[in-house]
This record gives sequence, C-alpha cells and structure tokens, in this order.
Amino acid sequence: MNSIFFQEQAIQELHFYLDVKKPSLLLFLVDEHTHECCLPHILAEIATEIPIEILEIESGESQKTIETAYQLWASLLDLQADRQSLLINVGGGVITDLGGFVASTFMRGISFLNIPTTLLAMVDASVGGKTGIDLEHSKNTVGTFAQADLVLIFPELLQTLPNIHIRNGLAEMLKHGLIADEQHWNDLISVPKFSLELIQNLIPKSIEIKKNIVEKDYKEENFRKTLNFGHTIGHAIESYFLEINQPILHGEAVAIGMHKELNLAVHKNLLDSDVAKHIQEHLVSLYEDVFLLEYDVEKVISFIQKDKKSSHNELKFSLITSIGTCAYNIAITEEEVRNVL
Amino acid sequence: MNSIFFQEQAIQELHFYLDVKKPSLLLFLVDEHTHECCLPHILAEIATEIPIEILEIESGESQKTIETAYQLWASLLDLQADRQSLLINVGGGVITDLGGFVASTFMRGISFLNIPTTLLAMVDASVGGKTGIDLEHSKNTVGTFAQADLVLIFPELLQTLPNIHIRNGLAEMLKHGLIADEQHWNDLISVPKFSLELIQNLIPKSIEIKKNIVEKDYKEENFRKTLNFGHTIGHAIESYFLEINQPILHGEAVAIGMHKELNLAVHKNLLDSDVAKHIQEHLVSLYEDVFLLEYDVEKVISFIQKDKKSSHNELKFSLITSIGTCAYNIAITEEEVRNVL
Repeated sequence: MNSIFFQEQAIQELHFYLDVKKPSLLLFLVDEHTHECCLPHILAEIATEIPIEILEIESGESQKTIETAYQLWASLLDLQADRQSLLINVGGGVITDLGGFVASTFMRGISFLNIPTTLLAMVDASVGGKTGIDLEHSKNTVGTFAQADLVLIFPELLQTLPNIHIRNGLAEMLKHGLIADEQHWNDLISVPKFSLELIQNLIPKSIEIKKNIVEKDYKEENFRKTLNFGHTIGHAIESYFLEINQPILHGEAVAIGMHKELNLAVHKNLLDSDVAKHIQEHLVSLYEDVFLLEYDVEKVISFIQKDKKSSHNELKFSLITSIGTCAYNIAITEEEVRNVL
Repeated sequence: MNSIFFQEQAIQELHFYLDVKKPSLLLFLVDEHTHECCLPHILAEIATEIPIEILEIESGESQKTIETAYQLWASLLDLQADRQSLLINVGGGVITDLGGFVASTFMRGISFLNIPTTLLAMVDASVGGKTGIDLEHSKNTVGTFAQADLVLIFPELLQTLPNIHIRNGLAEMLKHGLIADEQHWNDLISVPKFSLELIQNLIPKSIEIKKNIVEKDYKEENFRKTLNFGHTIGHAIESYFLEINQPILHGEAVAIGMHKELNLAVHKNLLDSDVAKHIQEHLVSLYEDVFLLEYDVEKVISFIQKDKKSSHNELKFSLITSIGTCAYNIAITEEEVRNVL
C-alpha cells in the first residue's frame, strides 16, 4: 500500500524519496488549472537539482482517453524519459488516473507520485492503486493496478477550488461512512452544508477508511467491492449524461446511485426502510437539484451491463445492510434495477 | 511464473484450466495466417460449451500499435467481455505481446493464455511475462509485466511455416546458449543449417533456460538483463530498418546485434577475441546476407539512446564473458558504440 503524507510531512517525505531514489528526471503532469494554481505552490517547496519537465493536458474527464495517453507516452519518449524517471501527477482524479496509467505502462512501468488537488482525488482516486482511462464513454475500461510510491496531500490547495468540487468529493466521503464507519457518517452530516473548513478535518479519516479496505483486498476479489456501493448505478448514470453531452459530477452521480441502490437494499430485505429513508433525506438535501434530472432508463441499464463489475451477465451489487456495514456480490436482476430507476 | 506445456499435455492442461476457472467467454486472438493454419487445429482439440469468439487482426509488426490495441479493447467491450473472460493469443510475438497487453489492461486485467505458433514466439515472446506495443517505431515502449496463465506449445504448428521463420527464432536460441548454457550453443551449431526437425528437439531446453533466468528476476532489475545480449544494438537496427520501410526479421537484427556487441565485449577486455571470432563466424554463416546490409550509424545510435535499457543517459550493455556466461550493466560510451557499428 502506498504511503500517504500531509502538509509539512509530505514535503519532508518527498525530499527523502528524491534523495534515496535519485530519479533521472522529474515530470510533473498538470492541467491548465493545476499548472496555474497548484504547481507554483509545490515547486516553491522543492529543493532539488534533478531536471524538471512539465507536461500539461487540458482539464476534464473528456481528456481521460487513449489519445491523451498516447500524447503523453510520445512526450516521455521525446523528453528521453527512462526507467529511472519519475512522473508526479498534480491534479484531480483525471490526472491521477491517467497519469498513473501512463506511468505504469511506459517502458512497462516507471515510478509515479500523486499530489491530489481536489477533495474527490484526495479521498478517492489517489488511494488504492487503480489507474484507468475511458473507452467510448465507458469509464475506466482500460487500466492497471499500480500504486503511487507516495501520495502527498496539501489540504490548503482546496481553498482555491469552487464549492462545486467540495460537492463532488463529499459523496465519496459519505460513502466511506455508510459502508464502513457510522461515526464518520455522523460527523459528516453534522457539518453545515459544504463547509470546507470542517470537512477538511475529516479528510484523514476518510482516506484511512478507504486505505483499510483496499489493504484487505487490493485486486478487488472480495471485500474491496464494498467501495462500489452507489457506483454500479452511479457510473452508468455518469456515463449516460456524458454521452448526451450534459456531464454531471462524479459525486452527483454517486449520490443518485446510492439513493437508488438503497432502494435495492430495502427491496432485498437487507436494509431497514427507515434507515434508507434517513440516508436518502440527507442525500437529497445535499444534492437536491440533480435529483430532478431525467434520464433514459433503458440506456442507463445498457451502461450497467457493460460495467466491469458484471460477471457472466449477472448483475452484482454492493449494498449496505446498516450504516457502517456493506455486503457485496448481491445478485440483482435487470428487472429489479429497472424498478428502482 | 507461468506454466508451459507441450503437445498432448497442453490439451489436457487446457481442459483442466477451463474446468476449474470456468471463463465466461473464450476470445481467440489470431491473424489471417494463424486463423487459417493454426486455429482449426486447436479448436478441433477443444471440447467445451463456453461461448467462443474470434478476433482477427492483420499480421505483421506494423500491427503492434496502440490503434490495434484500441480496436481490440473496443471489440471486447462490444462482445460484452467481462472480468471472467479469457483471451487466448494464437500467433507469433506480435500476437502474444499485443494480446497480453490488451488483456492485462482491459478492466485492469483479465486472464490470458499464449499459444505461440512461431519458433521465435515459442522460445522467447511467450515466456517471461513481458507484453508491449511499439510507439512511433520505438519497440515495446508501452507495455506491462503480465503472465499468461498457461503457455501451450505445439511444435507441429511450425511445419506450416516457411524457413525464414526458423531463421527468426534460431537467433534467440543461440543467444540462450551464449549467455547461459554452452552445451545448448554446441547442440545448436551442430544442427545442419535450419533443419527444423533437429531444432525442434532443442525447443524445450531453450525455453527452460529463459524461464530459469526470468524466475530469478522477473522485473528485470538485475540478472534478467542478460537476456538483452545482442538486443541493445539489435533493437536499434530493427527500428532503423522498420523506419525506412525495409523491415528485417527480429532474429536477423539480433544476429547483427550479437555480432557487434561481441566486439564491444572484446574491446572492454571481457571476452577472448578468438572466442568472439568463433561465434561471429557461425553467426555470419547462418545469417550471411543481412551482414551485407548498410545502415546510417548515427540514426541507429539515436535509436539506442531512446532504448528503455538506457539509464541517466548512460548506455548500459549486457555482454558475454565466455560462451555460457554473461555480464550486465556494462557502461559503454556512445563513441565505443560508434566504433563497433
């Protein structure tokens, strides 16, 4: 499991890492936003004589493609990156997923670090060793399991982000509480709506929950599947709105996904309906407007069928059984999904 | 390390594997040649009720690209392949390298088997867990370390191949002898020129040598580098002729590469010059015509610099010190390379 460090300790560990590993070249992967807002902050803290190159891609999920990966591989080749070069991903989930994929496949794998700059990337994408790109609107269809050597977290970077990004990351934090830690859920719902200052304090706990789950089952053969709660429907919803060119945030899609999957859990007699209602009320109050969106149920179902979590054409869901516990590999029919959608 | 089986035992092991793993779908990756010559032979031996799909790509190194990988990922998606699907690569090194890469990155890795159909693929590409595609004429720049669950070898498939393919594979077998097993070298040079029947008997030994090396150092951090003997110059020569649209065989390029690198070994006082001469005479007598080819030395050197075996801009070579022993990480200057080219 990768090592995660915060603030001053992150800077110390980075210097220690560079001293020991002596990379031949530092390659910072950024988008136009993190290039402007985050990279100067980070570069100001780094004292090194190792040559530095900056690779900039456009921001947005639409960049998480094989075409962008291709451009990055070609850039690494042009810059004469070698097996001792180090890629440092500075950005949100698109940058860490894409950068991790490029690093883990360039010359059959070079080292990389993640510096997540959004709440979502801090609590989710940067931890757990999943990398990936999208293929024809199907999310993370191509990817690898590959760990960043270090994950460095600077919560002050969040202060430059608009409120919408807090909204995006909070859904994953709520999920961590729902599947594994009732106290974390209670802490989160007691925070005034999207108050960054208070949410910030809960980041380490949220990361710890995810890290504990991933450590038990890195390759997602069993227990790690609990992290998919809200995501089987959520991913399909997200893919659907991406395809019709009205993209919604990942966190928004997961909020809808959790809401619908709670109904599945109740329907399967796994979860008390009052508990489901209590959770759903909080989800709706936080993410109100997205619950008004309309979508084509059959198209969403066809995305679920393409989902990599399906097996032998059966649909398998991860569903919570109380706040803080989650079951996985629950077989659900297409008809049952249709009913909750 | 993957399991390698020959002939009847290969068929038995395949059935055992299918019974235990119960893949959801069998996907055979072939090119137009192996589709016609090899696949019927294999399908005739398989008794299974698992659905079968066939993916055909054009033959040739020029297909080992990200574009072809993209088409294959998209086909897997269209065929609703899932994490329990099994890719079976039937072909030469292009098919096993490309198919292995596609499998190891589709949904972050599905299982695959290799059925090598050329001598080169049998003794080299199918063993050792390296997958890859070429990027802008730079060989295997993008790839993963991923093991086929089984490697199934049917030497009778070689009988359908023209003599040129024996020529292609023999260079790697000779290399195995030179770097690790003098007896194997002696056995090989005592065979009348490219006699398939006799070479066939030496395939298991050649595979065993490679397997032993790879098992000691899967990720190529040290000892596995000995397998690069002849390849630092050989790959660059191969890339050069590919770029000028006059491709030569991998085995031919390696024969030239070994010849030149033997001169480097003598120059560095690592190898007796008479031993080098003896080996070079055999290489020239086997691969005579390619030794007459002319090439642009500076362009070949620029390909060597791009080679993933270089580190911190130093050139590192694997050079034999006698027949059957090989050193690695030997620092060589660009000028020394220029002199032997």
